[in-house]
Amino acid sequence: MSRSATASFRVLAALVTPFRSDLSIDQEALASHCHKLLAQGCHGLVLFGTTGEAASLTHNERKDVLEALLARDIPAGRLLVGTGSCALGEAAELTRHATARGVGGVLVIPPFYFKPVGDDGLFAWYSTLIEQCTDLPLRLHLYHFPAISGVAIKPALAARLSQAFPVEVAGYKDSGGDLSHTRQIIAAMPDLEVRVGSEAQFLDTVEAGGAGCISATINVFAREAVALAHSLGSDRALHKQQALASRRLALRQLPSITAVKHLLAARYEQPSWSLVRPPLLALSDAEARILDQMESQQFAATA
Amino acid sequence: MSRSATASFRVLAALVTPFRSDLSIDQEALASHCHKLLAQGCHGLVLFGTTGEAASLTHNERKDVLEALLARDIPAGRLLVGTGSCALGEAAELTRHATARGVGGVLVIPPFYFKPVGDDGLFAWYSTLIEQCTDLPLRLHLYHFPAISGVAIKPALAARLSQAFPVEVAGYKDSGGDLSHTRQIIAAMPDLEVRVGSEAQFLDTVEAGGAGCISATINVFAREAVALAHSLGSDRALHKQQALASRRLALRQLPSITAVKHLLAARYEQPSWSLVRPPLLALSDAEARILDQMESQQFAATA
Repeated sequence: MSRSATASFRVLAALVTPFRSDLSIDQEALASHCHKLLAQGCHGLVLFGTTGEAASLTHNERKDVLEALLARDIPAGRLLVGTGSCALGEAAELTRHATARGVGGVLVIPPFYFKPVGDDGLFAWYSTLIEQCTDLPLRLHLYHFPAISGVAIKPALAARLSQAFPVEVAGYKDSGGDLSHTRQIIAAMPDLEVRVGSEAQFLDTVEAGGAGCISATINVFAREAVALAHSLGSDRALHKQQALASRRLALRQLPSITAVKHLLAARYEQPSWSLVRPPLLALSDAEARILDQMESQQFAATA
Repeated sequence: MSRSATASFRVLAALVTPFRSDLSIDQEALASHCHKLLAQGCHGLVLFGTTGEAASLTHNERKDVLEALLARDIPAGRLLVGTGSCALGEAAELTRHATARGVGGVLVIPPFYFKPVGDDGLFAWYSTLIEQCTDLPLRLHLYHFPAISGVAIKPALAARLSQAFPVEVAGYKDSGGDLSHTRQIIAAMPDLEVRVGSEAQFLDTVEAGGAGCISATINVFAREAVALAHSLGSDRALHKQQALASRRLALRQLPSITAVKHLLAARYEQPSWSLVRPPLLALSDAEARILDQMESQQFAATA
């Protein structure tokens, strides 16, 4: 199997999606954020993952935003685009659209309504999706996030899909938080690009042969995460990871998507950045105060 | 609050969705099935609930099928249409479409991707949806099915929504399977039409002041369920419910959507009725044999 162009991407931001005051998507603000993250050294950007509130966006919005980013010169090859949907027909349409635009890959959550679903049913779902895209250069990343989706992609299913579609199945995003599971996936499928959902597991993942991490907090700590990747193999690596992990841990005491957006609203001096769509909620005043205080202490500590 | 036109609907089938061999929706077969269920006395039909594999249909398919049924003379007022979607924009579009067509009501599952979600977030989600439909005669039924959706509609949330929107919030479908929860909902909101998901809880629900039941197995046991409703208050009622409950219990040893479709394929002598979309799977040969055997014994016992 040929290595994917994205195989060397170690640090990817799980993009948040900014809204205007009427909760329509602020494409301009998102494109500007993407350019800043790439300028800070991020290897790639995940558009429409959990952090991007993909589930709260319509299918047409998802297609429109991708077009808008490409029109604003975000390089397609740097994007991993979430194209999952419970309805196979919609997942296929989004996957074909993004792949035809030349994106680096697509990230596909399993259908997440029916539970429990057996591996045979999930294999049928992914196989049918892949077979509907064989005329395109599909690079599909399996998206394992059982705490949210309620549907796991077990090692046996990943192996079966990767063997059936060695070219098309390119990666595995492991947001399960369990390093032993991550190591199992990497060991069973050395050709798969495996990335974890947390900077705190970055070194363990890369040492085990994984590709890197995709994380929400990289929206705000991109420089630090890139510096961690550059320090690989040096004595400083663990220290850098620990510093990042402790900032991340503090942030994750709060609802994490909203907390990341709150910090970006402050950084970009644009209050609308803190908006989320229902059923997510903005931080309460008390939560916002805690977060602002944490960040100013952090700023004092690192200044 | 005025009583809804659907308040007297005691027995509603949670329709399955038939497919052709290419897994496109067989609108003709569905319309024919709807006419048969109404002829058998069903008071109403739920289009696009869990049993209808709504999650596996695209939004365009859902609009097209509703149009196709109305064009084939299914009375709009007999339909409760599932119009939920994780994306509020899509739920609003489907809800407006169905309501503008004059359906008896819409059944709306909460957004089911993010978990856990607080009641404030769910209240914001449903409120925004309802406010986008105030120019239409909206009759919204809350859809509580936590085992599948992963998101409960607790009594406090139902009460809050029903107080904020006494005209628009018309009902509550309780597929939680817990009668004490159902009684709590009925007692707290006597104006709400409350229906359970099982014929086995029909009498308890109606006696507590609930409206009736919406169930997958009514696709195949419609006559018996209607006879149960007609026997309300007579000595025969409990016997009829027990007979239905035992047939239902046998059926539910198997994957229930697929099992119901298998029985309809036999009844209508149209094998394509047994098709399901991934991630659901057709019955295995062994499962199909068990089901056929159960049904022939049942037929012998009741003949």
